[in-house]
Amino acid sequence: MVGAGEPAARLLVVGTGLIGTSVALAARAAGYEVWLDDVDHDRLRLAVSVEAGRARDGESPAVDLVVVAVPPFAVASVVSDIASQFVHANITHVASVQAEPERQVETVLPRFDRFVGGHPVAGRERSGPHHASADLFRERPWIVCATPSSRPTAVRAVTDLATACGAVTTEMTAAHHDAVLARLSHLPQLLASALAGSLLGLDRGEAGLAGTGLRDTSRLADSDATLWAEIVTANPVAVAAALRSVIGPLTELLGVLDAGDPGDIGRDVADLLRRGHRGRQLLAGKHGQRPVQWASVAVVVPDEPGRLARLLADTADAAVNVEDIRVDHSPGQPLGIVELDVAVAAADSLATALGAGGWAATVSMPSGVPGAD
Amino acid sequence: MVGAGEPAARLLVVGTGLIGTSVALAARAAGYEVWLDDVDHDRLRLAVSVEAGRARDGESPAVDLVVVAVPPFAVASVVSDIASQFVHANITHVASVQAEPERQVETVLPRFDRFVGGHPVAGRERSGPHHASADLFRERPWIVCATPSSRPTAVRAVTDLATACGAVTTEMTAAHHDAVLARLSHLPQLLASALAGSLLGLDRGEAGLAGTGLRDTSRLADSDATLWAEIVTANPVAVAAALRSVIGPLTELLGVLDAGDPGDIGRDVADLLRRGHRGRQLLAGKHGQRPVQWASVAVVVPDEPGRLARLLADTADAAVNVEDIRVDHSPGQPLGIVELDVAVAAADSLATALGAGGWAATVSMPSGVPGAD
Repeated sequence: MVGAGEPAARLLVVGTGLIGTSVALAARAAGYEVWLDDVDHDRLRLAVSVEAGRARDGESPAVDLVVVAVPPFAVASVVSDIASQFVHANITHVASVQAEPERQVETVLPRFDRFVGGHPVAGRERSGPHHASADLFRERPWIVCATPSSRPTAVRAVTDLATACGAVTTEMTAAHHDAVLARLSHLPQLLASALAGSLLGLDRGEAGLAGTGLRDTSRLADSDATLWAEIVTANPVAVAAALRSVIGPLTELLGVLDAGDPGDIGRDVADLLRRGHRGRQLLAGKHGQRPVQWASVAVVVPDEPGRLARLLADTADAAVNVEDIRVDHSPGQPLGIVELDVAVAAADSLATALGAGGWAATVSMPSGVPGAD
Repeated sequence: MVGAGEPAARLLVVGTGLIGTSVALAARAAGYEVWLDDVDHDRLRLAVSVEAGRARDGESPAVDLVVVAVPPFAVASVVSDIASQFVHANITHVASVQAEPERQVETVLPRFDRFVGGHPVAGRERSGPHHASADLFRERPWIVCATPSSRPTAVRAVTDLATACGAVTTEMTAAHHDAVLARLSHLPQLLASALAGSLLGLDRGEAGLAGTGLRDTSRLADSDATLWAEIVTANPVAVAAALRSVIGPLTELLGVLDAGDPGDIGRDVADLLRRGHRGRQLLAGKHGQRPVQWASVAVVVPDEPGRLARLLADTADAAVNVEDIRVDHSPGQPLGIVELDVAVAAADSLATALGAGGWAATVSMPSGVPGAD
């Protein structure tokens, strides 16, 4: 069936955490017949209870594709087990690092042509099969990493599954994947954690003076320590290169600050900011178009159920599309500031319409002479 | 009037950018009589047109307090001019650095007792008097920095103004202010810019694989380069100390990565993450309570005007209060993922209610075993 270029109709998912169970649910919704397995029997029972598939129960049904949804350092041993039990099936995994699992699979199964790496880039830390969703991968990237040995039908089976799950597939080598994810994911994680850790020199009153900037920049620092220890351990060289790309400019700036020449400091900081502007331009805008900068309309919103919804309803009445929303709960007070990002041309008319509806709204344009903060 | 412990009733604002004009509007709304001045006549005329006050027009009305709302390095010379023209008025400023302006004022006006520093921490970069708002400072911190020479009535005049503007005042020395803001504001800015700059090694397709994590962590990198060059130049010692507090642990991690021992890497990364967890706990939660972690409900939302509002209205119908919202526009597709943060106990019922309304909603709990991303 796979060889005929059609989607694999029979899938086994090994590991029924959030990602594995979500793959199972999405595949079932797309017409796949799905079996499940997990060393944790409670987790497996829970995945079965949300109708993600049927338990394998020690049997070896004829499946076309096996998804190994286990932590990175467990991938190779599970792939090896599966390969001996399912002698025709293609096998993939869903870990967020690729080169190390690929190397370990090559060690235990040299030139194994039924194996293909994969990484559905599906958002933040989540947990458990009861939170799984068939929509988890919808419109998200799913990076497919063929090995030098992967047979074309195996690659096809994985891209077909990803597409059936609603994801947007991209193919690259495992090394390329790990280098890119080191920049896009592993580096921001480490910076956010280092930034949050640096707050330990402050007391709670001082830290309470922080605004949305610090909160956004450090949000990733809430991530799971054990997971990230494993991810970075599996990708040390690319993470080191990514770290150097920020430690370098920051250390240079530190030297300039210590030297104390105001002209040099100003030039170095402005250069750092301008490089940052160019880097931000690389982050894809909406709909794959070039990114644009939005105007921001800040609105004072009492913290009561439904008030935020009424604000959004009033915004919709103004026929203005909101591109992004941030909610800043002010410390110590029962009010929040909601920032609505909208097109520059729409900002003033939105603020006027909201003002007419009784909201206190302030417009901020994306560039120009900044305020005193 | 000031001496009697009552609010200053007569205010002059010098510099009618967004912050100065917003102070003027807020003070007028609180009953102050307000005069305005600006070397840029167009900007002054605009501030007058939004009814922030009357133009000073070269005269010297009897005012109780003067707010100098100009860039940090212009503060001292304007304060000196004002001090000679208004021989009884107290004088403050609103720059986001404090020690350097205080030092420069001491140089031109030794032991000057009518001067008090101030910093309304009023959000992100904004521009122009036409975007000013009387609500800009509402529930925001306003840090008041008395000098060793400041007379008590001058400090009172500034805290009264801040309170009248709706801000929450905190008093600290200029050096303390600059050390705290270096951690809370200047450091996150430099990290976000360095992180965004590091993306320049990627092409647009690679950068387009980024998720909300990188976008949040690098958002500050859009800030104004000229403003930040001036801020950091005026606060080099505290910014250097703040930079060291992140360069240190990151450089240590880099050494461990280069050494390549998996056990050491895992331990170092887990330590970095756990320090970050503790640092995040210092950021004040809502209403000044201890911070809590929220569950996140992710919902697929078509990108059409009003759809977001309908989602929020449906959320309000479920009688669930939304603590935070993030919108992630998926690259290349006309759909967005909206993440609603709600109390853990409310997440499943919200997801069920939204599901009944036709939305595809996925719950993520704040801790536990993370997914593969």
